[in-house]
Amino acid sequence: MTNHQAVLDRAFHALSDPTRRAIVARLVQGPASVSDLAAPFTLAMPTLLQHLRVLEGSGLVASRKTGRVRTCTLNAAALAETEQWLARQRAAWEGRLDRLEALALQLHKEENDHG
Amino acid sequence: MTNHQAVLDRAFHALSDPTRRAIVARLVQGPASVSDLAAPFTLAMPTLLQHLRVLEGSGLVASRKTGRVRTCTLNAAALAETEQWLARQRAAWEGRLDRLEALALQLHKEENDHG
Repeated sequence: MTNHQAVLDRAFHALSDPTRRAIVARLVQGPASVSDLAAPFTLAMPTLLQHLRVLEGSGLVASRKTGRVRTCTLNAAALAETEQWLARQRAAWEGRLDRLEALALQLHKEENDHG
Repeated sequence: MTNHQAVLDRAFHALSDPTRRAIVARLVQGPASVSDLAAPFTLAMPTLLQHLRVLEGSGLVASRKTGRVRTCTLNAAALAETEQWLARQRAAWEGRLDRLEALALQLHKEENDHG
């Protein structure tokens, strides 16, 4: 498996959980301490830390401890890789629809020409 | 959990595997039989069918059996939902960067005005 595939595997896996998506949605607004991130959830702290570990392992989130406070930040570039993969699939899909439409128009024209 | 969250959970989970992403990348080119999908891989058929079950469970792929041939098609709308979620996060992130830039410019201007 290429490294790029492994990056996508981990990023998509990290995004497959609603709590982790909520953490990402909070971090796009700016860095946050672990306590800030915990506030909107009714999760036990160990569960939240487990989700943060998955997010850090995926490269979507980085964290740094200063004194007693651990601050988490989003790695927007890693998030962008997943979006780019999806955008490529959509472009291929739309290209196919365009070709089908062109083919349908051509068949219609040929029918009229010979009709 | 809302239904929309469950849809995203399953779609992102389905995309967290390189074989399943390769199947999606094949199906954006058009429908394919299970044998067509199997051809580029060196996977045992039960493994491929397991991946197809995950993709069908996620709503990203649908399949229909006609005679002895099962044909798989992409559900582009389900794929679009994951891209839209990511696009919303990027828009929020870019909005934040724009606000930071505006703030930096304002601080710079104030410094010059009072300097």
